[in-house]
Amino acid sequence: MLKLYYGPGACSFVPHAALEAIRIATGENFEAQAVKLHKGEQRTPEYLALNPLGLVPLLVVDGKPLGQILAICDYLDRRYPAVGLLPSAPWQRAEAMSTFAWMNNTVHPTFTHIFRPQNYADGEAAHAEIKKAAQVKFREHLERIQGMTEKAAPFLLGDKLSFIDAYALVFLRWAGLAEIDPAGYPAYRDYIARVAQAPAIAAAMAREGIALDTYKKK
Amino acid sequence: MLKLYYGPGACSFVPHAALEAIRIATGENFEAQAVKLHKGEQRTPEYLALNPLGLVPLLVVDGKPLGQILAICDYLDRRYPAVGLLPSAPWQRAEAMSTFAWMNNTVHPTFTHIFRPQNYADGEAAHAEIKKAAQVKFREHLERIQGMTEKAAPFLLGDKLSFIDAYALVFLRWAGLAEIDPAGYPAYRDYIARVAQAPAIAAAMAREGIALDTYKKK
Repeated sequence: MLKLYYGPGACSFVPHAALEAIRIATGENFEAQAVKLHKGEQRTPEYLALNPLGLVPLLVVDGKPLGQILAICDYLDRRYPAVGLLPSAPWQRAEAMSTFAWMNNTVHPTFTHIFRPQNYADGEAAHAEIKKAAQVKFREHLERIQGMTEKAAPFLLGDKLSFIDAYALVFLRWAGLAEIDPAGYPAYRDYIARVAQAPAIAAAMAREGIALDTYKKK
Repeated sequence: MLKLYYGPGACSFVPHAALEAIRIATGENFEAQAVKLHKGEQRTPEYLALNPLGLVPLLVVDGKPLGQILAICDYLDRRYPAVGLLPSAPWQRAEAMSTFAWMNNTVHPTFTHIFRPQNYADGEAAHAEIKKAAQVKFREHLERIQGMTEKAAPFLLGDKLSFIDAYALVFLRWAGLAEIDPAGYPAYRDYIARVAQAPAIAAAMAREGIALDTYKKK
């Protein structure tokens, strides 16, 4: 039995969409449990007993917990290789993992610096500086992903939805929250509009109750 | 043909040690090319042509470049599964990947905040605050790794050297550079002393010209 703990709109969307893709392709069901991060539910004793780091996502497999997006997704891909969430050819898989790891260790934490600068320094002046520097970097990352979408047909790796499409969707939603207008990235936005049509993505978005457009004009 | 670009003492030590382990176990040779990061060699036009992100490590396989530690190591593990750089049992592999991903997206960038706070903000006052907050977090991460070493026999995953042992060694060296005395982590230090005896680790350290002890008393 598979159970995913996720935060609506958080990075846990990546394994969430993957589990929907697995359900659609194989019929293997999963349980989805929302963790309301803004209410601090990741800090309850019950949740910390499962994941001492107090993070989502967490995948529980037959009662055993597994954290970290890359570990969860690699595990799911190896367990359900026919779903094709990563390419089966070794070199294409390696290139996809390289993009996936970059998204996870670079793009993702850059957003965290914008959204939670208090994680990185104490003073408010420092928070403003951290946020400003991270905004510049986050835009560079969005540009790089937009560059990747030029060859998207319709997805980043071709005709199969992969983990990195789901992550790319998360980042464009986060761009809006970071006060970056997605209209500045038209090719990226068009690509994500296609990704959002994929049944697995649509199902995960519906359960999380999230929309694509998060940007509010000032 | 495999060629690794590495920075002496950098995180590229992880695939470097792995390639030595592969050479010892299988006879498969590799070429190692040092990139002197303090001289900015990762920013030369030649290097940027190979890796536009200007980062190490970079593995070149039959002329094709692959960046990102996790992608390189996963590729090497799949190509040479008998070397056992990750467990073959799916759940044990997933748990190891979870630790590996945490090291890569959490411990590693926490050190970068200490070593290069200028990557995260412009002003000097902000740099001091970033460094201070990251020092606190880096010590917590060292404690968590030390906790993992309690069951090390002799390595973190048992009798086989894995990627995460090499990463753990890098972090204890970095602790010294971050002015954290490794003597404060005796179990971690004893474990790393054992790791450093492994032939693959010793060979990579010798080529990189690095020693375990980086801490300078003030």
